[in-house]
Amino acid sequence: MINMRDLDETSITEAVVSKVTQGGSARAKQINEAVVRHLHDLCRELELTEEEWEYAIDFLTRTGHMCSDTRQEFILLSDALGVSMLVDAINHRHPGDTTETTVFGPFFVENAPEVTSGADISGRLDGKPLLIEGAIRDEAGNPVAGAVVDIWHADEDGFYDVQLEGGEAGGRGRVLTDETGSFHLSSIVPSPYPIPDDGPVGQMLGVQGRHPYRPAHVHFMVRADGFRRLVTHLFIEGSDYLDSDVVFGVKDSLIKPIEWIEPGSGSTGGGHYLLRADIRLAPA
Amino acid sequence: MINMRDLDETSITEAVVSKVTQGGSARAKQINEAVVRHLHDLCRELELTEEEWEYAIDFLTRTGHMCSDTRQEFILLSDALGVSMLVDAINHRHPGDTTETTVFGPFFVENAPEVTSGADISGRLDGKPLLIEGAIRDEAGNPVAGAVVDIWHADEDGFYDVQLEGGEAGGRGRVLTDETGSFHLSSIVPSPYPIPDDGPVGQMLGVQGRHPYRPAHVHFMVRADGFRRLVTHLFIEGSDYLDSDVVFGVKDSLIKPIEWIEPGSGSTGGGHYLLRADIRLAPA
Repeated sequence: MINMRDLDETSITEAVVSKVTQGGSARAKQINEAVVRHLHDLCRELELTEEEWEYAIDFLTRTGHMCSDTRQEFILLSDALGVSMLVDAINHRHPGDTTETTVFGPFFVENAPEVTSGADISGRLDGKPLLIEGAIRDEAGNPVAGAVVDIWHADEDGFYDVQLEGGEAGGRGRVLTDETGSFHLSSIVPSPYPIPDDGPVGQMLGVQGRHPYRPAHVHFMVRADGFRRLVTHLFIEGSDYLDSDVVFGVKDSLIKPIEWIEPGSGSTGGGHYLLRADIRLAPA
Repeated sequence: MINMRDLDETSITEAVVSKVTQGGSARAKQINEAVVRHLHDLCRELELTEEEWEYAIDFLTRTGHMCSDTRQEFILLSDALGVSMLVDAINHRHPGDTTETTVFGPFFVENAPEVTSGADISGRLDGKPLLIEGAIRDEAGNPVAGAVVDIWHADEDGFYDVQLEGGEAGGRGRVLTDETGSFHLSSIVPSPYPIPDDGPVGQMLGVQGRHPYRPAHVHFMVRADGFRRLVTHLFIEGSDYLDSDVVFGVKDSLIKPIEWIEPGSGSTGGGHYLLRADIRLAPA
């Protein structure tokens, strides 16, 4: 029986661990113990002052108050501290010859517009025309028919639809692959953009002397029976910030060129840029 | 120059540390580096799954959304994980012959009613009458005149005024000590109570198999020129939960008896309980 009175800066940790591991699953106990040990070690190592503790409480509170249906400031914080990419790395260790993963980001929307291949998903977003031609395959290169492909990206000013006034979708859609595992969608070329930096995370980046930018990219989430869900981006070759992504998400294998296709020569009539999305899914 | 592409679950930590220590004061860099290292170590040790990461994001978001002008869920979380008492211990290491400290708690209110010694601060709180007789002294036992004493406590049902309907103060006041360092206030005897457990912290306690109760206590904050600010409680001897305070705040030296004073025999006319608050302040 651990004494629960007169706890000092050393004895308090075992006392708290004994309490937070009283109930819950074995995994819950493991997580709760590890969280307590790291939080306590952090405070001891830093000899955290009461003013700094108050700052931390206030920072977390402001971060929580910034979260809404269209803004996830805690995901931004996780992204900006490299935690999101670390968790991604831990959970996707053996891609083999499959497409690498990267951060989910805070701008995914459940129930994006369901479109058919060939659709224009640019909606109200402005920018230079971009054709996204995709092929979803398994590790051996066989086509995956009926895969559910979510695509979302920013506009030429670096804003997602959910950051703009009004509720209509733009630069966002869900499409199924055909019998050859293929799809194509028209949209616009996204720009690099700052993660939303008018909140606590932006203030943190300012203090840390960091810019808030991400290189230009298109998000993909691909789901198909028998395969692991893939969450990734394709980054646009030549974009600014490929070597200083604020969320640490760039992988060389995910950087792809966009090619200018003259009018009449491509699969649509007008001149446009072309992004090839050749994706290989890992087995479930 | 650290490579910022193709970061894996090991290399990402140095990359992130290099960024979060680009700017800010030496202390800010030290804190940001330590936070990143502990967060990353925690994720690696636990091999945190994406579902667990999503749970953590949601838990923090709900905790933030629970915070309001009268509810501070992040302080409750800090309290329930022993972080508040640890920070208190780190910052008040050498009380000598002075009064020990304990947690601030989430129910302090700026600008409490300013009253004169002798006042009844119970307001709309119900309970058995309690006279609080205080004497504020320095380490050598000399009286401290003009000290600002904030007192706050719960009612007989375990609720603070800010948890009740309506905005009027109760069980809360700010008084100055007289030339002899003394004050006395009338109020009511507080009860043990659960910390607010209808939010994420209450859910966490439920999973951990913990009760949410604190033993009965009266909060004190004492400020005087030339002395360290004192934040403490006096716990009521014989109260339930003295050996299982959910926030780990009990110290033997802070447990005090309340004595029943028969009508007419004490410093007020009616029968009442008496709590002696003999407090010694540490020098600044």
